Amino acid sequence: MTDRPQAPPDLVLAARRQRPSRTPVWFMRQAGRSLPEYRRVREGIAMLDSCRRPDLVTEIPLQPIRRYGVDAAIFYSDIVVPLAAAGVDLDIKPGVGPVVAEPIRTRADLHRLPPLTPDAVPYVTQAVRQIVAELGSTPLIGFAGAPFTLASYLVEGGPSRDLHRTKALMLGDPPLWRDLLDRLAQISRTFLQVQVEAGAAAVQLFDSWVGALSLADYVDHVQPSSAAVLEPLAALGVPRIHFGVGTGELLAAMGRAGAEVVGVDFRLSLADAARRVGPGYALQGNLDPAALFAPRAVLRDRVLAVLAAARDVPGHIFNLGHGVPPDADPGALAHVVDLVHEHGVP
Amino acid sequence: MTDRPQAPPDLVLAARRQRPSRTPVWFMRQAGRSLPEYRRVREGIAMLDSCRRPDLVTEIPLQPIRRYGVDAAIFYSDIVVPLAAAGVDLDIKPGVGPVVAEPIRTRADLHRLPPLTPDAVPYVTQAVRQIVAELGSTPLIGFAGAPFTLASYLVEGGPSRDLHRTKALMLGDPPLWRDLLDRLAQISRTFLQVQVEAGAAAVQLFDSWVGALSLADYVDHVQPSSAAVLEPLAALGVPRIHFGVGTGELLAAMGRAGAEVVGVDFRLSLADAARRVGPGYALQGNLDPAALFAPRAVLRDRVLAVLAAARDVPGHIFNLGHGVPPDADPGALAHVVDLVHEHGVP
Repeated sequence: MTDRPQAPPDLVLAARRQRPSRTPVWFMRQAGRSLPEYRRVREGIAMLDSCRRPDLVTEIPLQPIRRYGVDAAIFYSDIVVPLAAAGVDLDIKPGVGPVVAEPIRTRADLHRLPPLTPDAVPYVTQAVRQIVAELGSTPLIGFAGAPFTLASYLVEGGPSRDLHRTKALMLGDPPLWRDLLDRLAQISRTFLQVQVEAGAAAVQLFDSWVGALSLADYVDHVQPSSAAVLEPLAALGVPRIHFGVGTGELLAAMGRAGAEVVGVDFRLSLADAARRVGPGYALQGNLDPAALFAPRAVLRDRVLAVLAAARDVPGHIFNLGHGVPPDADPGALAHVVDLVHEHGVP
Repeated sequence: MTDRPQAPPDLVLAARRQRPSRTPVWFMRQAGRSLPEYRRVREGIAMLDSCRRPDLVTEIPLQPIRRYGVDAAIFYSDIVVPLAAAGVDLDIKPGVGPVVAEPIRTRADLHRLPPLTPDAVPYVTQAVRQIVAELGSTPLIGFAGAPFTLASYLVEGGPSRDLHRTKALMLGDPPLWRDLLDRLAQISRTFLQVQVEAGAAAVQLFDSWVGALSLADYVDHVQPSSAAVLEPLAALGVPRIHFGVGTGELLAAMGRAGAEVVGVDFRLSLADAARRVGPGYALQGNLDPAALFAPRAVLRDRVLAVLAAARDVPGHIFNLGHGVPPDADPGALAHVVDLVHEHGVP
C-alpha cells in the first residue's frame, strides 16, 4: 500500500479544535421521519424491527448524505435498542415511544437488565461496515443513549414528562441507582464500542432528558455513569460528542464527563455556552428547530447568527439545538446546509 | 371604626423583602387533583365548567388551607379561562389540555380574540370576595397566564412540546406577533385586575412555557407583553410573582418585566438564582416535586437544603419548583409545610 494517509474529515478536525476546510454540519435525527425516502423504506415496518435489519440500518443513514450533503452520517438506531438487545422486554409504540413491559424499580428487578455482549448486535457491526464503505470520506457518528436517559425509560416504564419516579429512586436509594446506572453504562459503552470497532469515526452520547436535573444532582448521581461510558472510549481515538436538551446548567459538567464536543441546545448562545464550558472543548449546535418553520429570510438570519456566535469558539460543528422535527421541510434543511457551507468561517 | 391596621401577611412581607414572622409556604397547584376532597367536588364536572361555578371556585382554593395550613391560597382557574371568557372557542379535554377550535395564525384570525371586559367574569369577582372573607388573614394570590404561554395554546391549537408554530410566527411575523401579544396582555391584565379589585392580596403571572425561548428571543419578543400585564398592576399595590418552567436563563429579564418576586424552578439553587436575578427581588421556590416521591428522610433533607440555599436571599417564599404532581401524596406536602414552618429562618 502506498496510499498517503487521508486527512481526517472536517467533523473530526472541528471536534479536535483543529482547522477544518469548512464548518461541518449535520442534524440530529437527520435520518428520520422528515424525509419522504425514510417514510418509504419504513412503511409497514415497526421501529424496533427497522433498527435490527442490516439493510435498513445501512440505507437510512445514507439518505440525508445523498439529499443534503451533510458532513456526517449518524448511525440509525433508537435509544432503547441496546436495552432490547441485552434482553429487556420492551417495545416502541407508534405515537408513544418506548414502553417497558416490567419497569425496574427495586433491587430484585435488576436481574432483568443483563450485560450487553457485542455478539448480541451482529446487525450493528454488519451495517456499520457497509455504511462506512459506502460513505467514503464522510464520517459516520456512532449513537447511544446515556445511562440516565436509559434509566428513565426503565424506571418510568415509558416516556415521562417529569421523571418523578426516576428522580425519586435516584434520591431515595443511591446504591440501587448506582448499580442500575453501572449496568446501563456497560450497555451504552459496549454499543458505542461495537460501532467504533466497525468503523464509526466519532460517537455521540445522547442524554436526552438529563436537563431535568439540577447541577448538584447531576454531579452526584449521573456524571460518574456518563464518564464510565465516555472515558474508556478515549482509547479508541475517536471524538466523543455529548448532548442533552435543556442542559444550560450542566454543560461544563457534561464536558468533564469525558467529551471533546459538548452539544448545546437553542436556549443559550454558543458564545455563552463556550464561556460556561470553559476552554478545551469544541461545541456542537445550536439552531432552534423552530426557525425551520419560519420564512427563508428569517431562517437565513438565524443560521448566520449561530455562525456569528460561534466565531470565537475553537471548534464548531453546526447542528440544530434539538432533533429535526418530523414535520420539518427537507428544503429548509437543505438551505441550512448550503448557508453553513457558504458562510461558515472555520 | 377604631380597628388598628392589620400587619400584612407573611407572604406579602416576604415578597416585599421585609421580615415575615416565618418563611411563608404555598404550592403551585396545591388546589387540585392531588387532593381527594378536590376530586370529590370535581366529580362529573368538566374543568372549564368548574372554573365558572362560584361555589367551586370558592371551595377549591380553601381546601389546601384547611388541610395544610399553607400561608396563601391561590385562585382556582385554568390558564385559558380568561380566553374563553373573552370569546375564544376552546375546551379543556381531559388527559389532553386546552384545545382551541380554530387556531390563530394569521392577521385575519385576530378578530377571534376580542378584549376581556370585567363583566364577562362576574363569577371571579363573586368568588374572590367570598374566598377572601373566608380566609381571614391568609392572603389570596390572583392567577393568570402570561401572553406568551396563552399565545402558544392559540397558535398551536393545543398543548405542544416544542412550540414550533408559535416560535415560527414570533420570528416570521413580528408585527402580527406583537398585536397578538398586545391583545393577550389586555386579557391577562384585566383578569388579574378583577381579582385584585375583589380582594386578592398578590398576583402570580404564570409563563409556563417561556423556558422554550433563548434570552434574546424573550427580550425581543415576549418581555414587553409581560411588562404590559405586570407594570400597570403596580398601581394596585399588591406584590407580583412571575414564574415559568426551565427559565434559568430568563430569570433576571422576567424580574425586570415588573415583578417583586421571581419564581425559580428546581434546576437552579436559590443562591444561584439570587445571583442571576440581582438585588431588589424576592424569590419563590424551589423544591423539586420529585422529592415528594422519595422517602421522608430524603424529602426532609431536600426541604432543609432549599431553606439553606435561601438563607441569604432577602425575601423567600417557599414553593415547589413546579406544580404539585397529580399523584403526589398529600401527606408529603403536609410534611413539607411543617418543616418549612419549623426550620424556615425568615
